[in-house]
Amino acid sequence: MGRRGNDKAHGQAPALPAMFDRYREYLEDALAASVPPLEDHPVNALLRYHLGWSDQTGAPAVTPSSQGKALRPTLCMFACDALQGDPRHAAPAAAALELIHNFSLVHDDIQDQGMERRHQPTVWAVWGTEQALVAGDAMQSLGDLSSLGVAGGVPPATAIKVSQLLTQSYLEMIEGQCRDLEFERRDSIESQEYLAMIALKTGALIRSSTVIGATIATEGAETLEGVARFGRAIGRLFQIRDDYLGIWGDEAITGKSTDSDIVQRKKSYPIVYAFQNADGARREELLRLYSRDTLDEDDVNLVLQILDDLGADRQTDELTEATAEEGRAALAMLELPPWAAEDAANLIDFMAYRLF
Amino acid sequence: MGRRGNDKAHGQAPALPAMFDRYREYLEDALAASVPPLEDHPVNALLRYHLGWSDQTGAPAVTPSSQGKALRPTLCMFACDALQGDPRHAAPAAAALELIHNFSLVHDDIQDQGMERRHQPTVWAVWGTEQALVAGDAMQSLGDLSSLGVAGGVPPATAIKVSQLLTQSYLEMIEGQCRDLEFERRDSIESQEYLAMIALKTGALIRSSTVIGATIATEGAETLEGVARFGRAIGRLFQIRDDYLGIWGDEAITGKSTDSDIVQRKKSYPIVYAFQNADGARREELLRLYSRDTLDEDDVNLVLQILDDLGADRQTDELTEATAEEGRAALAMLELPPWAAEDAANLIDFMAYRLF
Repeated sequence: MGRRGNDKAHGQAPALPAMFDRYREYLEDALAASVPPLEDHPVNALLRYHLGWSDQTGAPAVTPSSQGKALRPTLCMFACDALQGDPRHAAPAAAALELIHNFSLVHDDIQDQGMERRHQPTVWAVWGTEQALVAGDAMQSLGDLSSLGVAGGVPPATAIKVSQLLTQSYLEMIEGQCRDLEFERRDSIESQEYLAMIALKTGALIRSSTVIGATIATEGAETLEGVARFGRAIGRLFQIRDDYLGIWGDEAITGKSTDSDIVQRKKSYPIVYAFQNADGARREELLRLYSRDTLDEDDVNLVLQILDDLGADRQTDELTEATAEEGRAALAMLELPPWAAEDAANLIDFMAYRLF
Repeated sequence: MGRRGNDKAHGQAPALPAMFDRYREYLEDALAASVPPLEDHPVNALLRYHLGWSDQTGAPAVTPSSQGKALRPTLCMFACDALQGDPRHAAPAAAALELIHNFSLVHDDIQDQGMERRHQPTVWAVWGTEQALVAGDAMQSLGDLSSLGVAGGVPPATAIKVSQLLTQSYLEMIEGQCRDLEFERRDSIESQEYLAMIALKTGALIRSSTVIGATIATEGAETLEGVARFGRAIGRLFQIRDDYLGIWGDEAITGKSTDSDIVQRKKSYPIVYAFQNADGARREELLRLYSRDTLDEDDVNLVLQILDDLGADRQTDELTEATAEEGRAALAMLELPPWAAEDAANLIDFMAYRLF
């Protein structure tokens, strides 16, 4: 049982840490400088739509709230700021991280044939695969250019280091995608394999967000290693909490159907844990259910019952809390100024126990 | 009529310029350093297969000749060498150009549902769309990393410039792909629009190959502008000659079916010219033929007859010769050492009148 216990019971939501508002303007400016205006090129309509800036016709979006929390850029500018760097120097890299993250979503949606993302139809669903593929490639390139743009504020050798860190981390992300594709074809996945996969697929870019921001502020190898440990914990917390909410989250708060992860037979952490720990009969039952093309409501309830019997929710919470502790240990080594230490501690709590 | 006249008549093939052999070893070393070994990661099998290094099982390829001429890397190292730079300093950028070019082919084949490339099944045809998409993304990232690797031999600010030039040119390439997709849906394309499209789609990366190599050797703005003019001419020659050979080339030499461009209703330069210059009846005939899903042998012969009546082959040759002259004029301004001036002049002739 985690420090806060299972929040399903009491439903206390930790507040969004202050860092998410602090750098928003810098990010918006850097993104606006990186993504060319609509009239420059037809593909920009697709990018701006995916980023939540405009609707399918190119007109400004009515609900720009679909833009999300911008976790990666926020982490990048926060890490720079917390280590006494100028967060504005990190803004082009922060925009790059957001663009690379979004490029991966555009291509992911093609791969998974996902029809909806952030409450709107996906790019390929609106414009077709060909255009979505090209739009994703363009977004990656704009991200690369934005990253090189940090050379405006830091020495060129640092700018190269930043671009290398960014590119290496999305190669790791791609490796994670490959492993995930491979998992889809397998019955049995060990928890450790799953954790290694998510450390690449979602973890690498989150970790490198913190390391890139820190690299702009300092060259200290020990500090950078501590920041990487912190970032690694945040990345795992992000995904494990996502997995938790995908099954036990409150639909009204997350905005996603809570049985959707099970309906889609996603092999998220609780399911992997269940497969690994179920005895003969329960394991047979899970194998039978997960070999189907679609699961109906009864099937979903059966899966939920097995997860409950095995304590998969408690186990997920325990992993979350252990990971949060790793993050706190990394923080303690970093000797940040009090405002930054508090903000970072709040971030760990938020990532661990967020309800959305 | 071009300087050499229509080579269809006499079939003289200009020899491959010396530059294509001179830097091959540097390229191979840089590519080997950029593409991780097979055992590192499953996706590497797809990359190595596409590059012609291994077969579908991962075993070394028996016919490594499928690797192509490596035009872009050769241009890059030649431009550096010709301007008294060390071509080995350009090798990581040369490898990057080859990887970026190949990434675009992997994604192109997904877009066009192309089944064969360089006499072997395409990556998506062997491994499916999902894996091919990821393999292309990985190849782009490896190219980006390789490009940043020029920082090993040149000042960091130059390395950043190189990565910026590379990324900007493949954004242009992507813009060209978008325009090309749009052309497929249109009846009427002006020759000038077509030339502007190919200047982006195939021209940008070829031009930047020369400019990147030159940037590693010199900062002289006038020299770099002259090199860009030369590279622009080479890019157009490459595509226009490709268009010519796609219709009138000798199948036994090109290794492609010569009616394939017409069968596929590709809107290459001769076809665009014909559409633009055909009178009422011929234009109706072309529109009728190009609105079909597939063309049979009689249809192809009809198209060939119309092209012949309108002198589309002669017109294509004239455009080729005019472009070659632009390339020669750019060269004349550059005052290269004699060996390089001769090699570059041979390259122009080769690009203009190659038979394969």
